[in-house]
Amino acid sequence: MSNHSESLSQQVIFDILEKIKNFVEVRLFPIDHALLKMKWEDALPKLNALREEVKVQGLWCPQVPVSYGGMGLNTKQFGMVSEILGMSPIGHYVFNCQAPDAGNMEILMEFGTAQQKEKFLKPLLEGKIRSCFSMTEPNNAGSNPLLMSTTAIRENGEYTINGDKWFTSSADGASFAIVMALTDESNPNPYQRASQIIVPMNTNGLNIVRNIPIMGDEGYGYFSHSEIRYKNCKVIVDNILGSEGAGFAIAQTRLGPGRIHHCMRWIGICERAFSMMCTYVSKRTISPGLMLSDKQTIQNWIAESRADIYAARLMVLDVADKIDTFGQNKAKIEISMIKYFVANVLNKVLDRAIQAHGALGITDDTLLSWWFRHERGARIYDGPDEVHKSRVAKEILKGFQS
Amino acid sequence: MSNHSESLSQQVIFDILEKIKNFVEVRLFPIDHALLKMKWEDALPKLNALREEVKVQGLWCPQVPVSYGGMGLNTKQFGMVSEILGMSPIGHYVFNCQAPDAGNMEILMEFGTAQQKEKFLKPLLEGKIRSCFSMTEPNNAGSNPLLMSTTAIRENGEYTINGDKWFTSSADGASFAIVMALTDESNPNPYQRASQIIVPMNTNGLNIVRNIPIMGDEGYGYFSHSEIRYKNCKVIVDNILGSEGAGFAIAQTRLGPGRIHHCMRWIGICERAFSMMCTYVSKRTISPGLMLSDKQTIQNWIAESRADIYAARLMVLDVADKIDTFGQNKAKIEISMIKYFVANVLNKVLDRAIQAHGALGITDDTLLSWWFRHERGARIYDGPDEVHKSRVAKEILKGFQS
Amino acid sequence: MSNHSESLSQQVIFDILEKIKNFVEVRLFPIDHALLKMKWEDALPKLNALREEVKVQGLWCPQVPVSYGGMGLNTKQFGMVSEILGMSPIGHYVFNCQAPDAGNMEILMEFGTAQQKEKFLKPLLEGKIRSCFSMTEPNNAGSNPLLMSTTAIRENGEYTINGDKWFTSSADGASFAIVMALTDESNPNPYQRASQIIVPMNTNGLNIVRNIPIMGDEGYGYFSHSEIRYKNCKVIVDNILGSEGAGFAIAQTRLGPGRIHHCMRWIGICERAFSMMCTYVSKRTISPGLMLSDKQTIQNWIAESRADIYAARLMVLDVADKIDTFGQNKAKIEISMIKYFVANVLNKVLDRAIQAHGALGITDDTLLSWWFRHERGARIYDGPDEVHKSRVAKEILKGFQS
Amino acid sequence: MSNHSESLSQQVIFDILEKIKNFVEVRLFPIDHALLKMKWEDALPKLNALREEVKVQGLWCPQVPVSYGGMGLNTKQFGMVSEILGMSPIGHYVFNCQAPDAGNMEILMEFGTAQQKEKFLKPLLEGKIRSCFSMTEPNNAGSNPLLMSTTAIRENGEYTINGDKWFTSSADGASFAIVMALTDESNPNPYQRASQIIVPMNTNGLNIVRNIPIMGDEGYGYFSHSEIRYKNCKVIVDNILGSEGAGFAIAQTRLGPGRIHHCMRWIGICERAFSMMCTYVSKRTISPGLMLSDKQTIQNWIAESRADIYAARLMVLDVADKIDTFGQNKAKIEISMIKYFVANVLNKVLDRAIQAHGALGITDDTLLSWWFRHERGARIYDGPDEVHKSRVAKEILKGFQS
Repeated sequence: MSNHSESLSQQVIFDILEKIKNFVEVRLFPIDHALLKMKWEDALPKLNALREEVKVQGLWCPQVPVSYGGMGLNTKQFGMVSEILGMSPIGHYVFNCQAPDAGNMEILMEFGTAQQKEKFLKPLLEGKIRSCFSMTEPNNAGSNPLLMSTTAIRENGEYTINGDKWFTSSADGASFAIVMALTDESNPNPYQRASQIIVPMNTNGLNIVRNIPIMGDEGYGYFSHSEIRYKNCKVIVDNILGSEGAGFAIAQTRLGPGRIHHCMRWIGICERAFSMMCTYVSKRTISPGLMLSDKQTIQNWIAESRADIYAARLMVLDVADKIDTFGQNKAKIEISMIKYFVANVLNKVLDRAIQAHGALGITDDTLLSWWFRHERGARIYDGPDEVHKSRVAKEILKGFQS
Repeated sequence: MSNHSESLSQQVIFDILEKIKNFVEVRLFPIDHALLKMKWEDALPKLNALREEVKVQGLWCPQVPVSYGGMGLNTKQFGMVSEILGMSPIGHYVFNCQAPDAGNMEILMEFGTAQQKEKFLKPLLEGKIRSCFSMTEPNNAGSNPLLMSTTAIRENGEYTINGDKWFTSSADGASFAIVMALTDESNPNPYQRASQIIVPMNTNGLNIVRNIPIMGDEGYGYFSHSEIRYKNCKVIVDNILGSEGAGFAIAQTRLGPGRIHHCMRWIGICERAFSMMCTYVSKRTISPGLMLSDKQTIQNWIAESRADIYAARLMVLDVADKIDTFGQNKAKIEISMIKYFVANVLNKVLDRAIQAHGALGITDDTLLSWWFRHERGARIYDGPDEVHKSRVAKEILKGFQS
Repeated sequence: MSNHSESLSQQVIFDILEKIKNFVEVRLFPIDHALLKMKWEDALPKLNALREEVKVQGLWCPQVPVSYGGMGLNTKQFGMVSEILGMSPIGHYVFNCQAPDAGNMEILMEFGTAQQKEKFLKPLLEGKIRSCFSMTEPNNAGSNPLLMSTTAIRENGEYTINGDKWFTSSADGASFAIVMALTDESNPNPYQRASQIIVPMNTNGLNIVRNIPIMGDEGYGYFSHSEIRYKNCKVIVDNILGSEGAGFAIAQTRLGPGRIHHCMRWIGICERAFSMMCTYVSKRTISPGLMLSDKQTIQNWIAESRADIYAARLMVLDVADKIDTFGQNKAKIEISMIKYFVANVLNKVLDRAIQAHGALGITDDTLLSWWFRHERGARIYDGPDEVHKSRVAKEILKGFQS
Repeated sequence: MSNHSESLSQQVIFDILEKIKNFVEVRLFPIDHALLKMKWEDALPKLNALREEVKVQGLWCPQVPVSYGGMGLNTKQFGMVSEILGMSPIGHYVFNCQAPDAGNMEILMEFGTAQQKEKFLKPLLEGKIRSCFSMTEPNNAGSNPLLMSTTAIRENGEYTINGDKWFTSSADGASFAIVMALTDESNPNPYQRASQIIVPMNTNGLNIVRNIPIMGDEGYGYFSHSEIRYKNCKVIVDNILGSEGAGFAIAQTRLGPGRIHHCMRWIGICERAFSMMCTYVSKRTISPGLMLSDKQTIQNWIAESRADIYAARLMVLDVADKIDTFGQNKAKIEISMIKYFVANVLNKVLDRAIQAHGALGITDDTLLSWWFRHERGARIYDGPDEVHKSRVAKEILKGFQS
């Protein structure tokens, strides 16, 4: 946290947010939906042009410390940015703070060697390459990170990786993957069994089996989630991140900021969906002289959504503040709590927005369908609601045991 | 109703249901998901082969009176069949009782002239052609059927149709459409302004603007929902169904049986999703020795889903029975009531089944995603929940006015 | 089941229901609320007079076999009666089919000796005495019936009972209790450790500690729930019901019919609350010319409540029918299922009815408050929802284990 | 707002909150439940003794400006105090900031004449008398404040008041009422028709018809809600508050702070109920070696409740801050929004706490029953949820009208 410029004044932050909001509304809103429907290779040149504009405006990599060429925002400040960017499905990408790259940047900045930084981090920060994070396995419940089968055996200065991964997001077109694999399978401490290893995507033995079709979309390029088979895939030992066995510990460091990133992104989605709902019901006639907005049920949805979003936003920003002030270890319960709270608000708001749009809501003519489909996963990825709830409860209950 | 063979004994019905269930499980389950992912032209030969099997087994057109070559089941009996067929997304099609053809058959049987029956009904019953029903308009709230702009002007022995329609399901590849259009726009009784007119799809002036992409699927052939522009589209006056101005009255006759059809289809979906959920959680290990099925939250979902489906099923069958016994006019409230009750059960059961599947649930590797996406519309099409609720309440409240 | 007159024709049943409905509406509705507010001793003479009327009309003990002087209705038939009686908080009492007496009658009819029947059953059937069932213990989770501490030690032709019970409903003023106690604490089969023993309330060592105040009501007479301390309380061994160790087995026999009784009673409450809600909103002006019934939210509540009650009713009657046809052992899942399904419908309907009544809803000026308070327990007593859900799920999941 | 000592440092506030929390936990928790069960006259001496302790500690009238002898906390600061006091049903009373007196104090401080302050405000501030606010009428929907029938006719230097009021809380034993009555029934601006008039309770023509029994409690003294009949009840014109016709305007000024007061009080209730739930499930054995806290459903309730309370708390404090910073007119939507949001959190948390307590939860042995019964009204009083939702939505929709 220490290298964030916490000294940015409120006014400076406010101006940055205004500037970003303006960019997102003026440059992204008019084209984002169309871009989503293109093939990745057709969208890419347009996205790159937008990225250049962002750089020119000095808004590039808002979450990255100044010393690494970013804006140096702290967790809460970037949270507010993430909300605005989240209003457009291409927002984070255009500002080079998209998952999973943002997380990988952070890992490399904190745990990377000088060579790793030069080779992998630099081009990532410059937006010249993309990366992915290869952890979840099809045959093991992702909710339990200790259930892992992929191994990385060290021998002759190399790690030989074997195993199946899936939901390796954005692998299609990425330059490297950070792979989580067991390097010490029989370590009595299960949290010291795995390591994170950088694997260039063109390494022999790394095979993308397929882009997993998700909720009706096959997925291309950045917008993809791959199934990957690692078969005798060898990389030099220098590619390890941090020390051997530190895989879980490193993953932990990303948890708090990553959660804030996503939760605020979800709130951004809520805001745009809410705005779409209000706009639509205000102009939709249901009988002569009566608009959809005159119906009390619609009004209930608007009032409930507004309150839900309000609550969610305050909660996430409060947790971000706790992370910035006390460190994420002091905010573990809260970091879990916003996961299920905000994911549910998101799913409810999207559902109401669709229902308010009637038949139009289930078409792909609006962004609502895209979010409804792709954010159904919000209650599942990064740990399903149910797992987080149990975790939160168990932690709370410790205070009540006599 | 009179021409249904209500005299079929319980045992005969039971045997028919067993036979159909067996066919669906053995012949359809293993291939339906793969068929859904094919282009329509690739799927069609396989579907046709299955249809032939159904004919051979004497299970063709279960909802059609014996005199027209069907099995002659009444509303409740067909409801039970519809549940079983609904377990597979291709079930109804293979048995030639799919919407919108089934509804069009009924209209033609009841209101068609001898020529209309010969030309349009016969090949429909034989499964040689498909049809569509063109009613909803993009610029008018579908929840209020009186808001209609498409006109059919009679002149020189022809109707000239002008207007925009959308959500004309299965228009792509259909042979004819039944079009709802205003033939007497200024009739003081708004329910007598519209007529139903048969329009062959190859008529000049009928243009499919596009297949509307729905929840991530572009749609092909039978599995499509078209936007259609009628521009000076002319058909002979003989193509009118029933008398001029009878459009709404005819539409009403389809309402009850159509609702039972869909509600029982939804229950079929629930049953398969429920079964998938139970199967998956029973084999998914979440930590050594602990299965997903051991978690109380999962158990809650199973118990709640089972009760919800049970209730929904009894309710729909009871309404079907009322329709068969007293006619659908005596069951109007109930016909509205099952719409929102069952659609909500469906959406809840699918949501739980997906959540129980974790990451797998949001992939297109199971049928759950397809249903989750395509049946989000269940709370919208045929009148959104909100409209039905108001209707039911107003009807009930009549009994409390002093 | 065999001694129920299943041969009663539909028409006869229909006439009985009409007669009972008429009695409840004409004789009970006008006074039941006032009676509830009296002390038990003041209400009793009026209740007894009503009971005499019921006897005269031939409607006494509808659930009891003809051979024992009742109407001989089967489970489903009595279920329909229970719904009607449930509309009034004094309904079951006036017809002498109130819990816990109805259950005790059934136990005595099935397991009682000739002497037990003469001494305890006969006056119960005649409505001359009341009884109670003493099972739940304050220091043991009632959801797990195996957790029991009360013991009955046999010695010298007597059982000596020691232990604490609570929620012994209607103990205040009862003539005898059926007490569940451990007679063979170390039996390897935990289900054979307990017995049911008849204990006259005036037995030395049986002390009513207090009537437990429930949701604002101290409780008197029949409308009470006592805490009882058994301290060296001795009864002759002849007072055992069935054989020693049969306590759980006997309790099981009451489960199905008892559940139907309560669920249908809850539905009766729903019906009256629903009717009160519709009546109130139809006459309540909220602004000039606008009634509460014109608000869409109110209409939603009416439509949802109607559908929920409809579903619940069909479900319970279907389960009752299964019990009558196949025996309750074949309907175990369903008997659990209606518990949580109907209890939740009840709680939702009452909540909506209160909200629709505004400030009036939270006063004790209507029956709604009484039910809201006393039926909050519906999701708890006879096993909390959560326990039934787990049970149902585990039973269902057995069918999915490979 | 100007007379609040906003300059109190964070540390000072923190110390005050600690001190109050300590007092509430040590002095009130052990006896509050027992006090609630006493008759008012028996509880009063004990409450008065506690009030003296509060005065000695310098914590008296925390919401009142220093110039009037209070602590001078602003809205947000008092909000935090109100949360702590809300944990005990006698908290606000003991600190002399209980509704409706706190609101009446505020009205008198802002609009009272010197004489009114001397006669009515001074003893109120000193805790020597109590007061009430008489606005809601049994025959008019309280949700629409314009529907009012009570009149106050000015003649000969007096107002003659006629009309029926109910839910005049704490009237029993109060010294005066502030009565809302129509002084200019035909004013074209309906918001200028009513005035607020001080009426000593012993005035001829003011008759307490009854204490309305609420959810099982008859109500005594402070804990009562009266129905009052004003029949030719005359007071001198000097008793008017502010100018004639200013009734609604004055009522508005109380809305924001009053809402914060109640919402934070509700959150205090949530906190104590939450704590009771966690304590209970941690010590309740459900089978050998298994505690209630080990059940996932219970854990869900804990996790959901914690998140809900967290969100609610942040929201109310944020709104309080807006009121302090910008004035309540700038926070109207938010003031409505917290009403329905927090009331629902309250009702849900209490419901879960009761369910977690099982049978014990529905007894009056814990405070849960009292809150469950008396705070069911939270979704009704001060405007039912439905009214606030419509208001919020309509205000939001103004921004979307083209």
